[in-house]
Formats: sequence, structure tokens, C-alpha cells
Amino acid sequence: MKSIVGSPGTASGLILRVGQCLCAASSIYTMASAHKFSDYTAFCYLIAAMGLQVLWSLGLMCLDIYSLRTKRDLQNPVIVSLFVVGDWVTATLSLAAACSSAGVVVLYAKDLDFCRMLPHHPCNTFQISIGFAFVSWFLMAMSSHVMFWLLATTY
Amino acid sequence: MKSIVGSPGTASGLILRVGQCLCAASSIYTMASAHKFSDYTAFCYLIAAMGLQVLWSLGLMCLDIYSLRTKRDLQNPVIVSLFVVGDWVTATLSLAAACSSAGVVVLYAKDLDFCRMLPHHPCNTFQISIGFAFVSWFLMAMSSHVMFWLLATTY
Repeated sequence: MKSIVGSPGTASGLILRVGQCLCAASSIYTMASAHKFSDYTAFCYLIAAMGLQVLWSLGLMCLDIYSLRTKRDLQNPVIVSLFVVGDWVTATLSLAAACSSAGVVVLYAKDLDFCRMLPHHPCNTFQISIGFAFVSWFLMAMSSHVMFWLLATTY
Repeated sequence: MKSIVGSPGTASGLILRVGQCLCAASSIYTMASAHKFSDYTAFCYLIAAMGLQVLWSLGLMCLDIYSLRTKRDLQNPVIVSLFVVGDWVTATLSLAAACSSAGVVVLYAKDLDFCRMLPHHPCNTFQISIGFAFVSWFLMAMSSHVMFWLLATTY
């Protein structure tokens, strides 16, 4: 298998995983600090999806650190197939969660104008959390494409 | 380039494109028939994303028909690279539109219970349109993965 930027067991791969973890954790922290976020199904789903992303990225981050320390090669087709499926599922769930939450925030901020009418509504906090979720999805999508490319080039 | 199920210029590729077109068009038709859909940014965005998908899939459907009739090979790296980018962008926009609309519908149907309280609210019509959008995204994601696989296997 060729080694490209973001491959498992490389420094760039590790940086991507750290970025995913940090952004997903920031999204959860910001959302959880917003008042009454649990009244909205979309925001609860965002926390669940970001939680899954933190777990997945943290696991692969540990695997990258282990691989870098022991110089063991992680790039065999079976392991990469597992990464492809996991990355794709996690990336899709993250995008779905970020977009459904963004749909609710746009409805409140633009269509119903609640953010201006109800100044205590934590619109900004929701928006920051969703922003982190989108960045986290973008980093996950990059990992997912790298893994898929690595897998496809072995065939 | 190897030819796999869903490749451009094959009967299975043509069937995928027809399915994408039909589902996206059904989603637009159902949403446009709902009363006051234009009051919601998310639903307008769904119509725009599905409109883009209809145009893209229709274009590639015509290209598939042309290729099947004239037996011309569409599988060269430059053309497939273009398909990869187009399919990925269209699939991502479709998923984003479907999820943001679903976020709004879940808010109305579950969190605020508007669908039960306001029986004239076209909740079911919105849900059917979003369902079509998800099926259309799924077919687009399949095409997108096939194209990416074809491109990666040439390197």
C-alpha cells in the first residue's frame, strides 16, 4: 500500500485524528453548556453523533500513536477496510447531525426571528457548537477519503 | 479501468442515474405541492439541492445513453475525475438538504407537537418529500463511491 498524507500510522494521520477529536469534543461541550438544549431532538442527536466521533477518533488516535512508537505497519487491506467503513459511517452521521441542527437554528434565527425576539435564547451557543461539528465532519471526510483511496489502490 | 456495477457508460450506471433523477424530481414535486413550504429556508434549500441533483443526474443519464448507443468508452481518468467531484458535491448537498429539512420536521412533529395540534399543517407531505430526498442521496452516494473506486484503481 502507498502511504499518502493522512494514512493510518503516520504523523499527518495522527494530526487529523487529534483535530477530529478536539472539534467533536468542543461541539459537545458548547452544546451541553447551552440552556435547555435537551428540549430539541436535533441537538441531542448532535451530541450523540459527536460522542461517537470522539470515541472512534480517540481509538484510532491511540492506534496511530502505538504504530508510530513501535513502527508497526497498519496499512493492510483488512484493517483499512475496517477504517473505511467506520470513517464513512461516522462522517455521514456527523454531517447528518450538524445539518439537522443547522436546520433548526436557521428556522429559529431566520424564519421565525426568535433569536432577536427572545434575547435569552442561546442561539449563538447553538451556532458555535454546530460550527465545530461541521469542522469535525470536514476532517472526518478527509480521513474517510484517504482510507477509501488506500483501499482502492490495493486492488 | 475495470468496469464495475454502476460504472459510467454501463446499463447499471444508467439505472442508478434514472433512479436518482426520479427520486429527486419526486422530492421536488411533493415539496412544491405542500402549502407554504417557501416559509421555511430548509425546504427551499431542499428544492434547490434536489434541482441540482436532477440536472446533474439527467446530464450523466444522457451521457450514459450516448455511450451505450455508440459503444464509446467513458472510463478515462479525466472524465471520471470530473464525475467524482460532481457526484461528491451533489451527494453532500443532497444529504445536507435532506437532514436540515428532517431536523425542522422532527422539531415540528415531535418536539413542539405541531402536527397533532395543527391538523392542516402539511407534515406528511414534508415527510414524504424528505424520504424521497434520502433515497435520492443514497443512490447518489453509491454512484459517488463507484466513481471514486474507479479513479483510485487507475493509480
